[in-house]
Amino acid sequence: MQRIYSSSLQKINQISQKCWKSTSTRVELTQVRYPKLKRGNYSVISDKHISTFEKIIPGRVLTSATDDLESFNTDWLRTARGNSSVVLKPKSTEEVSEILKFCNQQRLAVCPQGGNTGLVAGSVPVFDEVILNLSLMRKIESIDTASGVIVCEAGCVLEELDNVLREKDLMMPLDLGAKGSCQIGGNVSTNAGGLRLLRYGSMHANTLGLIAVKADGTVVDALNCLKKDNTGYALHHLFVGSEGTLGVVTKVAIQCPHVPQAVSLMFLGLSDFASVMETTQRAKGFLGEILSSCELMDLECADAVVQNMKLKLPLERMPFYMLLETSGSNAAHDEEKLNAFLEAVMNQGLVLDGTVITEPSRLKAVWHLRECIAEALLRDGYVYKYDVTLPAQKFYDLVPFFNDKLKEAGALRCCAFGHLGDGNVHFNVTSTEFSYKLLGLIEPSIYEWTSKHRGSISAEHGIGLKKRDFLKFSKTAEAIEMMRDIKQVMDPNGILNPYKDLGEARGHEARTTQAFSRTIPAGLQAREPKFAMPKEDSEQTALRTELENLISSIQDKQKEVNDANLADKCGDMGDAPKIRLATKKMLKGHINKVTTCHYSGDSRSNYIVQNRKLNYFLLI
Amino acid sequence: MQRIYSSSLQKINQISQKCWKSTSTRVELTQVRYPKLKRGNYSVISDKHISTFEKIIPGRVLTSATDDLESFNTDWLRTARGNSSVVLKPKSTEEVSEILKFCNQQRLAVCPQGGNTGLVAGSVPVFDEVILNLSLMRKIESIDTASGVIVCEAGCVLEELDNVLREKDLMMPLDLGAKGSCQIGGNVSTNAGGLRLLRYGSMHANTLGLIAVKADGTVVDALNCLKKDNTGYALHHLFVGSEGTLGVVTKVAIQCPHVPQAVSLMFLGLSDFASVMETTQRAKGFLGEILSSCELMDLECADAVVQNMKLKLPLERMPFYMLLETSGSNAAHDEEKLNAFLEAVMNQGLVLDGTVITEPSRLKAVWHLRECIAEALLRDGYVYKYDVTLPAQKFYDLVPFFNDKLKEAGALRCCAFGHLGDGNVHFNVTSTEFSYKLLGLIEPSIYEWTSKHRGSISAEHGIGLKKRDFLKFSKTAEAIEMMRDIKQVMDPNGILNPYKDLGEARGHEARTTQAFSRTIPAGLQAREPKFAMPKEDSEQTALRTELENLISSIQDKQKEVNDANLADKCGDMGDAPKIRLATKKMLKGHINKVTTCHYSGDSRSNYIVQNRKLNYFLLI
Repeated sequence: MQRIYSSSLQKINQISQKCWKSTSTRVELTQVRYPKLKRGNYSVISDKHISTFEKIIPGRVLTSATDDLESFNTDWLRTARGNSSVVLKPKSTEEVSEILKFCNQQRLAVCPQGGNTGLVAGSVPVFDEVILNLSLMRKIESIDTASGVIVCEAGCVLEELDNVLREKDLMMPLDLGAKGSCQIGGNVSTNAGGLRLLRYGSMHANTLGLIAVKADGTVVDALNCLKKDNTGYALHHLFVGSEGTLGVVTKVAIQCPHVPQAVSLMFLGLSDFASVMETTQRAKGFLGEILSSCELMDLECADAVVQNMKLKLPLERMPFYMLLETSGSNAAHDEEKLNAFLEAVMNQGLVLDGTVITEPSRLKAVWHLRECIAEALLRDGYVYKYDVTLPAQKFYDLVPFFNDKLKEAGALRCCAFGHLGDGNVHFNVTSTEFSYKLLGLIEPSIYEWTSKHRGSISAEHGIGLKKRDFLKFSKTAEAIEMMRDIKQVMDPNGILNPYKDLGEARGHEARTTQAFSRTIPAGLQAREPKFAMPKEDSEQTALRTELENLISSIQDKQKEVNDANLADKCGDMGDAPKIRLATKKMLKGHINKVTTCHYSGDSRSNYIVQNRKLNYFLLI
Repeated sequence: MQRIYSSSLQKINQISQKCWKSTSTRVELTQVRYPKLKRGNYSVISDKHISTFEKIIPGRVLTSATDDLESFNTDWLRTARGNSSVVLKPKSTEEVSEILKFCNQQRLAVCPQGGNTGLVAGSVPVFDEVILNLSLMRKIESIDTASGVIVCEAGCVLEELDNVLREKDLMMPLDLGAKGSCQIGGNVSTNAGGLRLLRYGSMHANTLGLIAVKADGTVVDALNCLKKDNTGYALHHLFVGSEGTLGVVTKVAIQCPHVPQAVSLMFLGLSDFASVMETTQRAKGFLGEILSSCELMDLECADAVVQNMKLKLPLERMPFYMLLETSGSNAAHDEEKLNAFLEAVMNQGLVLDGTVITEPSRLKAVWHLRECIAEALLRDGYVYKYDVTLPAQKFYDLVPFFNDKLKEAGALRCCAFGHLGDGNVHFNVTSTEFSYKLLGLIEPSIYEWTSKHRGSISAEHGIGLKKRDFLKFSKTAEAIEMMRDIKQVMDPNGILNPYKDLGEARGHEARTTQAFSRTIPAGLQAREPKFAMPKEDSEQTALRTELENLISSIQDKQKEVNDANLADKCGDMGDAPKIRLATKKMLKGHINKVTTCHYSGDSRSNYIVQNRKLNYFLLI
């Protein structure tokens, strides 16, 4: 076993060096990529500022003079990079308050940052904003098992909270691909969605209260832990989803459901979208209170998974597939309900074929088919990604609306998957490489179409920097004006997360208001090609394949030699000297943390690279 | 049968005349009752104003010169009466906008009004505010059965919406005693709670979007109908629960659940509160997703129901009773779960005795035991009522905290009932008559106690006029300041529902800010006795008993002679001439609509008096 690992590690090290080289190219600075963005009228950071920060949080001020701030400046998608020279890591609400008070007095712009896993460049600076990173605020204050309420600081990682709660038979109400890195403060500030919103609701429904610090340092304690509280305005809802532009959330109280006793999954094949709609309705009727997820993927998505990921579907090729998950308190009852439902929809001819999965490892494998669609599509070459909510009856209309003209113009796939139960559709178009023609055919008409059908141009990703100029497609002028009023009264100097959401605060506009008209914004259009997801290159693909094969061969070898355990083999050994384990780099990602992230090329240290999805870890 | 009705009607007419006489005394004017309240610096209504209103909504302007405005000026509890001389009844958002724009220009204060069933005097004017009554805005715009979303105008009555939805296998997510009168716009504006919040969530969770008109007439269209929408600030949450002080809600989109296939109720007897807590936890585990209500009543509440309402409990006398309701999609499964739960808690010795009810009429009767507690307590003489939310483990602590000292001071009962699942406890103290001594023992210490334990001083009733000076016990100074900021930017002239919630808007304060300190407010203390619920008088009690006996004898007779139906008996009759049915007076109430309301003494007309709770109606 040791021998296999040794040779594998050598190989992995070799690959990781190559990966590092291939991905170490810096992302273009946001201010270069979007030349029409103008820096607001904020102060420039000085040594005097730094020394004050040092007084407030001694030893927790990182500066570009002494530290590498690239990971704080660059977003997860590697499409935006700020140019901040200072990262502050407070440990308490009081410290956040003192920092903001000082920044507000000094007119220093601030970019609050959680796990930095957002997809709209909302959590990285645009210019030289001070980065206020909350990762050291990780205390769990209390878990009330009777009422199911957890109170914790904003920097707690979602998955860690979930693990702690599960020991008490509770769970976090939200589940995201990025759960291993994203922080609860960010989840609240961005109103994060996820796979089980259908059952457990949004962060608006689950956030009972919070503490937030306003731009001037005022601490607004709205830390309600109660289900019912009708005393005045619902202040905490204002912070939920405002992406750090109204205040910095430092502590939250979250309502947590009990862990279900039984979980089952159905994979269904259907012939047309009308049947999908009818089946969704029937599922709501038959499965009612146990339905916890209701997902769709069309044939083109499924083909991408089969062709590009080399995975096998549990059913034949069919126009549509649905994944239905149930979570209940009695496995036998749930199974009966599932079977009754399946019988009904198959007898009615709605569903052509289907399978019910309850065995945990198969359950994970089938979920993986749905979860890896995004990556499968990316492997076509280039992906135009859209994340919109539409009324149920319009859910799939985008595909027929766009399909023919896009295919004629060279699109490989024009497909949709997403959360049927919530009306949240991920519309995706792929091509071998980026094409202005295709982009022009999709935008702005997709936003106009969505707007016309009273959909939302951002279902779960938020606005951030990337969608700020499209806000008008989902909000009326009066609603945006009301947002501006609120921003103005909460943060009159506009220091909090500027350039995001509404764009610059009043009095800090560098653009004309015409940029907010309902036409495609000229500013962002100019350099649009670099705005989308980075194109996959063949060297990376080859390296990834090599790495995956290696992982799989290690797993096979592990299985082969799995004839002893550590306790048996090491029972006679003495105490080992203390080992210092420190997180050098937390890898972040939705899909596959190993294959989409950088590797350190520093051969002096050993690294633990963990993939939380597939439950393995590698020592490099 | 005709004969019985005829004599009964004669008797009812006689009683109703007496009732009218006994209750026709006008409620004291709020401005007289609270002499320290000062009218804000608003304009006084003039004929010129009236004629402009007439131009905006011709024929729908009621004035004290020609109409009786008492029911619009007086709250349901008959503890507050405004002195408005004009009621406006718009039929559209545009009309509301025009009205508010004009009022804002003219500095006329406005009191928005829905069904006027609130309990904190929030929906009636304090001085001479213009009453903006939304009862004519009753259009249902759409019901999307696929996504379960209803879009309707603010004046739609909750019960009517529920009836329409049930035809489509959907239901309203909230259920209130006042459902026959309350309007959805009011439900949203007050974040109404109710019996099934545990299962279906609050109005914050269920209101997807809305249209509201700001003080200056601006229409904010935030009518999102989507479950997921992450485009900017959650504006609609700001209007939910703001009691008409930030804008007038004119249209709403509500997420509606499917009607459950099976409903069951358990009535349990327990020996101590620790067992109640443990049973609640076990119920959440065993019943999980089907639990739809979890209610508590203690022995003193139960005794009041038995003694004062002459009702019989299904179990022996025990220190605590719980009502657990389940709503599921499969009756057999639910029953099995219920039985398993019951077996577990009884074997564990948590529950002394219990019964499961599924038969609809018995279900209603057992629910009635819980629902009539408020009235039963009122019959003791005088009730001190408090509606607070507390953390689960503190739920019952108020009773032992207050019991001994209050009993020594002459209290008859010191008891609690309420929504265990939501932590919302209704703490009640009764005495034969009002006592300053008892009041002084309860207040302000109950608010201080609630505040100390981070509870809410208003769980579901809101703030309105009555609790405005106690807001500080649930909100920090910084939170209240943030509320004031928001009020200021939304309604700079403070014309919307003044004197409520935060008190007067900035620049319109007639009181000193000291009145907001964390001590019992001197202004309201002075005339506190009249502030509580009106005392029951013996004549009314006798009349009510007489009426109830009559109703019961009619019901008995109905049963006796129920040997034919209308279609059989009248099949050979010709068409009747058209009858004009008009609602003369909508009786409003939580408990018993007949016995707590006025009757018209006008013998020229016939009246239909309907009791929606008990499902009978009387022709008077």
